[in-house]
Amino acid sequence: MSNSRPIGVFDSGIGGLTVVKALRDLLPNEKIFYLGDTARVPYGGKSASTVERYSLEMTDMLVDEGVKTIVIACNSASAVALPKLEKTLSVPVVGVIKPGAQAAVAATHNRHIGIIGTRATIKSGAYEKALRELDPKIDISTRTCPLLVPFIEEGWLEDDLTDQIIARYLEPLVREGVDTLVLGCTHYPLLIDALSRALGEKVKLVDSARNCATAVQELLDREQLRTPSGTSGGLEVALTDLPDSFLHVARDALHLDIGEVHLRDVLHPAPH
Amino acid sequence: MSNSRPIGVFDSGIGGLTVVKALRDLLPNEKIFYLGDTARVPYGGKSASTVERYSLEMTDMLVDEGVKTIVIACNSASAVALPKLEKTLSVPVVGVIKPGAQAAVAATHNRHIGIIGTRATIKSGAYEKALRELDPKIDISTRTCPLLVPFIEEGWLEDDLTDQIIARYLEPLVREGVDTLVLGCTHYPLLIDALSRALGEKVKLVDSARNCATAVQELLDREQLRTPSGTSGGLEVALTDLPDSFLHVARDALHLDIGEVHLRDVLHPAPH
Repeated sequence: MSNSRPIGVFDSGIGGLTVVKALRDLLPNEKIFYLGDTARVPYGGKSASTVERYSLEMTDMLVDEGVKTIVIACNSASAVALPKLEKTLSVPVVGVIKPGAQAAVAATHNRHIGIIGTRATIKSGAYEKALRELDPKIDISTRTCPLLVPFIEEGWLEDDLTDQIIARYLEPLVREGVDTLVLGCTHYPLLIDALSRALGEKVKLVDSARNCATAVQELLDREQLRTPSGTSGGLEVALTDLPDSFLHVARDALHLDIGEVHLRDVLHPAPH
Repeated sequence: MSNSRPIGVFDSGIGGLTVVKALRDLLPNEKIFYLGDTARVPYGGKSASTVERYSLEMTDMLVDEGVKTIVIACNSASAVALPKLEKTLSVPVVGVIKPGAQAAVAATHNRHIGIIGTRATIKSGAYEKALRELDPKIDISTRTCPLLVPFIEEGWLEDDLTDQIIARYLEPLVREGVDTLVLGCTHYPLLIDALSRALGEKVKLVDSARNCATAVQELLDREQLRTPSGTSGGLEVALTDLPDSFLHVARDALHLDIGEVHLRDVLHPAPH
């Protein structure tokens, strides 16, 4: 099978485009096929069994597209479905949890790490597990932040109300003494400026999108799947429902060239 | 077919329980079967064709449960799918849009009505259409409020940040001179106190849940579908995904006796 096949990137919606942005920057020669399940977004408040079922359906569609590897650019899906996907998929899979945990353990000095994410991600305990496998004595503070994604999708990235919400969510973590904060949702890098303002210089931010892109690069090298140098990369975006206004927010904030968006019916994937 | 069959109530999630509360208060002898599509919630940001498809699937499941009438307790679904549902379903259907529009036209003095709702509801223009059918010369101001549902689901019903969001959303409508505001989303009655505080006494609030319940009562009387007096009513709740924390918010705020919640797989409805 050819190394010029695309990298498949899957997210519950459009937040995973932050991972695409990091991949495009790091691996400009690679083709990317992005699949967002906008017909059923968000996953973050749904049960583990439902998130796992949706994730299996979506990654099956990516395999049908002929991708050479799959990136689960969604913390909720990575947290809940990755073990099953690793067992069942015919191509290698990279999630966002492990790369984020590794980066956090490398960044912390006081060994006290904070994690913010959706209800599904935090409830899964996946970050705690990944962190404790790397350092069993690490201190961890977590916080579900269900309002951050809606604020981002509203496009209020630089807004006094967004700053107030962030302060409300992060204040307990800062009080508990974390020196490193994992952005455990691929939407959150769009708030990186507001989050940095709220935390100041004392707390390091771990951006799961960028660390995930680095993990993909390492995987492609390890499996000898890098596209031949000199080929030109690109991005194709498919969604399970028509794009809503947030697509423009992501496009503008990330300076991504998204082009035409294709529709995929989640119950009847494209024939292959 | 027996009049003791339940009333079927459908919503994208759990917001429609405000309609259930109004129905229980108004029609205490009636049995209610509530079906919430929590596996795909919310509908408010999704496309018209997707919302219509989901609505058809969910109401088919209610018909299979043997309901005598169906209440579309979701503004997004009412706005987009009601004409199709009225044509295809074998039982009478009541939505929330028309009752809300009628109550608003009855309430306004200056004939300037405001409407707040999700993106799908506002974009559909369904309230404008219903209002203009009642009074072609009415002035209408609309505003999408995509953050209100997430705030309600976070349980922040009495909160300074919620008040600020409400002020942000409503300020243009007040400035434009509306004297009546339609709560075009079945979640919003849970914010009635905060909304009243923000608007003062000059703007009347039209609660689509209560008006919908009145419309159901009229329909049952017209079609001679009222349950025999002396029978005891009740509520059965089924969801397409396990209930999340918002179920407790709704239960506590509405003082509803919800009891055991049943799961329904949206792709494989219960056999009948």
